[in-house]
Amino acid sequence: MTRLYNDPHTFTDDMLAGFLDVHRDSVTGVPGGVVRNTETRPGKVAVVVGGGSGHYPAFCGVVGQGFADGAVVGNIFTSPSAQDAYSVGKAAVGTAGLLFSTGNYAGDVMNFTLAQERLINEGIDTRVVFVTDDVASAPTSEMHKRRGIAGDFVVFKVAGAAAEEGYDLDSVERVARHANDRTRTLGVAFAGCTMPGADAPLFTVPPGRMGVGLGIHGEPGVGEDALPRAADLAQRLVSGVLAEKPAGSGNRVTALLNGLGTTKYEELFVVWRSVAGLLADQGLEIVAPEVGELVTSLDMAGCSLTLVFLDDELERLWLAPADTPAYRKGRVDVASAASARRTTTSDESTTTVIRPGSEESHACARTIVSALDAMASAMAQAEDELGRIDAVAGDGDHGRGMVKGTSAAVAAARDALNAGSGAQSVLEAAGDAWAGKAGGTSGVLWGAILRGIGERLGDDGEAPSASDVADAVQTGLLMLQRLGKAQLGDKTMVDAFAPFTETLVECVRSGTGLPAAWLEATRVCETAAQATADLRPRVGRARPLAELSIGTPDAGATSFALCAHAVADVLKYGR
Amino acid sequence: MTRLYNDPHTFTDDMLAGFLDVHRDSVTGVPGGVVRNTETRPGKVAVVVGGGSGHYPAFCGVVGQGFADGAVVGNIFTSPSAQDAYSVGKAAVGTAGLLFSTGNYAGDVMNFTLAQERLINEGIDTRVVFVTDDVASAPTSEMHKRRGIAGDFVVFKVAGAAAEEGYDLDSVERVARHANDRTRTLGVAFAGCTMPGADAPLFTVPPGRMGVGLGIHGEPGVGEDALPRAADLAQRLVSGVLAEKPAGSGNRVTALLNGLGTTKYEELFVVWRSVAGLLADQGLEIVAPEVGELVTSLDMAGCSLTLVFLDDELERLWLAPADTPAYRKGRVDVASAASARRTTTSDESTTTVIRPGSEESHACARTIVSALDAMASAMAQAEDELGRIDAVAGDGDHGRGMVKGTSAAVAAARDALNAGSGAQSVLEAAGDAWAGKAGGTSGVLWGAILRGIGERLGDDGEAPSASDVADAVQTGLLMLQRLGKAQLGDKTMVDAFAPFTETLVECVRSGTGLPAAWLEATRVCETAAQATADLRPRVGRARPLAELSIGTPDAGATSFALCAHAVADVLKYGR
Repeated sequence: MTRLYNDPHTFTDDMLAGFLDVHRDSVTGVPGGVVRNTETRPGKVAVVVGGGSGHYPAFCGVVGQGFADGAVVGNIFTSPSAQDAYSVGKAAVGTAGLLFSTGNYAGDVMNFTLAQERLINEGIDTRVVFVTDDVASAPTSEMHKRRGIAGDFVVFKVAGAAAEEGYDLDSVERVARHANDRTRTLGVAFAGCTMPGADAPLFTVPPGRMGVGLGIHGEPGVGEDALPRAADLAQRLVSGVLAEKPAGSGNRVTALLNGLGTTKYEELFVVWRSVAGLLADQGLEIVAPEVGELVTSLDMAGCSLTLVFLDDELERLWLAPADTPAYRKGRVDVASAASARRTTTSDESTTTVIRPGSEESHACARTIVSALDAMASAMAQAEDELGRIDAVAGDGDHGRGMVKGTSAAVAAARDALNAGSGAQSVLEAAGDAWAGKAGGTSGVLWGAILRGIGERLGDDGEAPSASDVADAVQTGLLMLQRLGKAQLGDKTMVDAFAPFTETLVECVRSGTGLPAAWLEATRVCETAAQATADLRPRVGRARPLAELSIGTPDAGATSFALCAHAVADVLKYGR
Repeated sequence: MTRLYNDPHTFTDDMLAGFLDVHRDSVTGVPGGVVRNTETRPGKVAVVVGGGSGHYPAFCGVVGQGFADGAVVGNIFTSPSAQDAYSVGKAAVGTAGLLFSTGNYAGDVMNFTLAQERLINEGIDTRVVFVTDDVASAPTSEMHKRRGIAGDFVVFKVAGAAAEEGYDLDSVERVARHANDRTRTLGVAFAGCTMPGADAPLFTVPPGRMGVGLGIHGEPGVGEDALPRAADLAQRLVSGVLAEKPAGSGNRVTALLNGLGTTKYEELFVVWRSVAGLLADQGLEIVAPEVGELVTSLDMAGCSLTLVFLDDELERLWLAPADTPAYRKGRVDVASAASARRTTTSDESTTTVIRPGSEESHACARTIVSALDAMASAMAQAEDELGRIDAVAGDGDHGRGMVKGTSAAVAAARDALNAGSGAQSVLEAAGDAWAGKAGGTSGVLWGAILRGIGERLGDDGEAPSASDVADAVQTGLLMLQRLGKAQLGDKTMVDAFAPFTETLVECVRSGTGLPAAWLEATRVCETAAQATADLRPRVGRARPLAELSIGTPDAGATSFALCAHAVADVLKYGR
């Protein structure tokens, strides 16, 4: 289990500070993550990787020559925010554009895509490649739904090497996608990892058994089996991956036998002995394999086998030199390594623009701040309970995320209000702060909801009518659905938010005043949130305990209902 | 726990084969271990490190440019045999002599010293430096008794860098001793590791507690405490190590924060953050620290802090480039790296010389083979029970070691007998095979006993009398005590062997025939072996459960009594 921490809430910050201290000769911290401490060469594409932390050496450990230019560092197993990705991308990018690459998880997809949009809006050509190597996570017919596990390492390395070689952005993106298309991984797990401060593992595997196809956070796999002999495990992994050999690939491969944290080097070498024999039996030539800990999952027990079906280009890029805190290969060319020392270490120009609003809008903004304040109090009170129900089928960090998000939102909103802003600017400031500080999936979704509401309310003109508010809430729901892609019945926040909105719109249309309409909508959505207990999650980063989550309401729907309730009180009594 | 293996008995061989396959571009297997796959440069001292396996990257992972020339690889947590050390030393040595370095453990000290003697006899100048960095294992007044833990890494690195720089053997030895004198480590453990095939950990620490000062195999420490916050642990480690600051050292240090296997990178970085601050507060300047897994202990949970109090020479050698399978630093000079590819990969000239014996000695040798055969059968039968009682205060591998040793001994003895040898040559062949195949402490000791007995019996002349046999057994006991340094009452084989010998000598002196005298001596030693249950171990590699071993007889004394019994049957009935 994870035993060493000061405060579980500052674990990632403490970890990052320690990492940056040890490796201060080669990397530098920036808001949201880590970049090389040399400037990106003019004409060189920047490659920025990332995702939640807890996977060291992935991802901050591979920032360096021939590999990544930067890593966005989220909380443990939680996507970094779009703001974080934007910040690291901005710090890393030179004159030739930017490639983001992450594993294919809902939160990462949303946040890195939002950051990409923002950078493109600023004139920075930005691409995103999501890694989908895990053969167990979806059938071949739905490869795009597969998650990224140890194959991340391959795609990031190949993209980094291509950028170092001088590929332009189109070509770096092309070869990263190509590497992803040629990379397949199958993993097994023997025991779950424990989050800092938790007193039980995130998931469990019965003693003497193994979960086959489990992801790097304990996501569901394809089955469970008795723990086999090392040679039989090798057979299982090799045949599982070879069954997915991409069409048109030849007989040269590289292989990664990756330990997830507590399956140690000696065991990996024992398994590798058999893997090497089996691959040779298949007539495959193995080029520069890696056996060790590359993409871990805290103290999870398990391992995975990755095969990369090489062509000349992929082989050259795989073999290219690299020099990073946690990974080195070959000899880094001294000339290319001698880039200028970084002078600017971060771009802090990320503050939301404050526009003064009309008097009426400013008054509305005051109510919004009160509403956010009430939400923050409600979340602080509900934190433990939300964590408990989220842990049934998730990370158990929903309560913490909502507290971080709402408290950041109310602080930013109050600053904007004090600067004279109207409703839209206050909500934008609140949404950006929420997404930026909470990270993860709920952070980016709530950020989008608040921005959506704000867009419809504007900063000017009259005080919004009940109908304006109902319209604005509807816009917020649309933003959520556009970004999160969840449908009604998927056991998400949508299952509370959609009936809430429908009721609010109907009540207002039939002439009910805003406070009463909001209260009625809250009542409906509380019932709907409770009813999510009967549902089985169908989207997002599902967990092996997803089946068990029947009987427990969804944490996101529950927190939505609690927030709606808190706002109802504000509207009823004023503040 | 260690879950992945084929056969626990072949774990080390399987591991080594996998390691050698992955790293075939840089290392080559030789009998007993691993060497670089380039020839040692003329004029360059060879540095050969080693010890039991289970500590990866130590020790085979650090064979390469700027670090070790070879590693002797024992079974898990078991010293390699003198034969293994001799073989790897012979394969690695060039024209400028050899430095062996290992942690200061009884088995390693015996085996590497024996190998050193043998190499010196062959005209190869050989030195041995035993690492003693663990401050918890003995008081400052008895530094020479301290064991080597993560400080191994430092001493090996410094010696390797010095050899690469062109130091002569005297100077490499001097600077290795100096590095050892300037290196201090304190470790803590949170949970024990599990040997391949075992169903319980080697030792346990109660949940929420930590053992302070535990060695890398769970040897006893200085105390037990509640598991602290990361910052408090940092404080404890820093103050513990700084209390041992060597006289005359300055304010420049390097530091290793080493994870033992399942205390992961993220946790280590969190602890490092505090360690770095505390060291800075003390006015120390930290040069090129390492935070990660350097000297592990299978899946043990825990970490250690090593400080090296630098001077200019140590700092230069610590910073010198290195390029090994598991560890790289700086840029290896291409010129020095371009040594000739190794052509000879091993020196197999290690067969015992067979000398034809006199007819009478040959007849005696026939009885000796029968006696060894009976011992091998007895050990095969007692393997599990010996393992069980050894596990109370040791690795639990004594039964396995005795089976490996006796079966190898009888096979080698039979070959020598068939070649016409006398008693001495048969016993020498048997002793060498025993020590070579069994490894560990009991292997080397039994090897010395058989050689001692053989030396006294000779290959020529008449059949030995009862008195000659008693004298020979006495010589065997002397060899054991000279090498093993254990005294009566230390809860070792000596507690059975000494009374056995005394009784045998007395009975024979008073005119009893050999079969009856041997039987009487066996009776006495069986009682004595049983009585070791009342003793507490005082020598060798003690274990945290040493106290608990009161009530359980010593495994070595028990197996000695069983062997004596088996031989008594042979002498009584003939074979």
